[in-house]
Amino acid sequence: MIKTIIFDLDDTLYDATWLTNESRKGGLKKMIQQGLNIDMENASILLDKIVNEFGSNYHRHFDVFLERIKDQPNIHPKKNFSVPKYIAAGVWGYHSVKVRYLKPFSDVIPTLKKLKQLRKTLAIITDGISVKQYEKILRMEIIDYFDHIFISEEVGFNKPDTDFFSYCLKEMNFKSEECLYVGDRLDKDIKPANEIGMTSVLIHRGGKYDPNLKNSNEKTEINPDYEIYTLEKLIKIIESLEN
Amino acid sequence: MIKTIIFDLDDTLYDATWLTNESRKGGLKKMIQQGLNIDMENASILLDKIVNEFGSNYHRHFDVFLERIKDQPNIHPKKNFSVPKYIAAGVWGYHSVKVRYLKPFSDVIPTLKKLKQLRKTLAIITDGISVKQYEKILRMEIIDYFDHIFISEEVGFNKPDTDFFSYCLKEMNFKSEECLYVGDRLDKDIKPANEIGMTSVLIHRGGKYDPNLKNSNEKTEINPDYEIYTLEKLIKIIESLEN
Repeated sequence: MIKTIIFDLDDTLYDATWLTNESRKGGLKKMIQQGLNIDMENASILLDKIVNEFGSNYHRHFDVFLERIKDQPNIHPKKNFSVPKYIAAGVWGYHSVKVRYLKPFSDVIPTLKKLKQLRKTLAIITDGISVKQYEKILRMEIIDYFDHIFISEEVGFNKPDTDFFSYCLKEMNFKSEECLYVGDRLDKDIKPANEIGMTSVLIHRGGKYDPNLKNSNEKTEINPDYEIYTLEKLIKIIESLEN
Repeated sequence: MIKTIIFDLDDTLYDATWLTNESRKGGLKKMIQQGLNIDMENASILLDKIVNEFGSNYHRHFDVFLERIKDQPNIHPKKNFSVPKYIAAGVWGYHSVKVRYLKPFSDVIPTLKKLKQLRKTLAIITDGISVKQYEKILRMEIIDYFDHIFISEEVGFNKPDTDFFSYCLKEMNFKSEECLYVGDRLDKDIKPANEIGMTSVLIHRGGKYDPNLKNSNEKTEINPDYEIYTLEKLIKIIESLEN
């Protein structure tokens, strides 16, 4: 019997890929509004390149961005070019979008409510910086639905280490066969869930790790027990497993 | 003739003392809402103590706060005490208040408009971290009123160094007798403005450095040319200086 449902966070409970892209665009827009003479398309291409080089958790993307463009001719109209002014504009634009549009997918709250009615234990297992992940969970106002939250930085393991999953099972006092795990990534979610013996559910959200976006070779190596496009399907899966 | 009006930022153009206090309270409130078992009064006293110890620009006050209280009996109701969860709640509460209530004093925009109509050059000279100060100026939507913005970190001087003020004069191409300087602090604003020969105006905003809050000994050592309680008085001062 499935007693606990465990969720990944980014691109499973909210649209991380979209939100990050929009937030970065929001930052660039504010910089341009403040006088930076660069078009959005070229700016986006350069910023994406920097994010790839430095990793998405690096917190000075806009600093590097300005460092790279500041000597281009006509990049700023006035004689007093202030790098910190443009960084501040970028940070302002980035955070305004992030705070405004950070919402769970529309199927999240209804599904969490139904699972609570079914008396399931609910948990999150996610990679990331603890304070940042908790801030998202708090701002989305979903924290009270969860009995357990495990974040890689706080716990000391990273996905896809199965020791991370074993640690969580021990803390929750469940066996792996009592758990259903839902995530958007084959490599970091489905692989360890399968290896440890949980029922694995791949959710397609169209995010940057969605296997539908990748070539079919990669996709067939790791096989989830279920594939879904909306969380509401979880209820049916659980019912079918219990009959 | 007064050609340029130079403003300090914090507690001169917006209510920094009040906003910082309210933001910290906002952080503590969210922590308590999330289950931290401490009353607001004791929490505020402890947080103030930490801010005094570490300085107001240190960015981990809530971390130190939680470190100090986490071993108190009954401080948190559930068995799984997560420090990052409470830090995230604090950060969320702090920033929500800060973003929502960061506004210029009500006399700022009308005064800046009138000064622009009088064809004065407008500037800011402020201590602080460049990106943080620019973010405030941008979010308050007052940046377009200013011809020059000088921030200590960006320029490489700190108040009350008169070299900071000389540097700004040179950049703006004005003589000190053509400048009127408005700030809330005797030690960091009025003293250097007097020393360099600007017309000095002390504004009383009731912030933490307002000399009205201090003993009279300190107050009499440094004498501003004018003392005002609302920026609108500036217009009259300038008119009287020009007649």
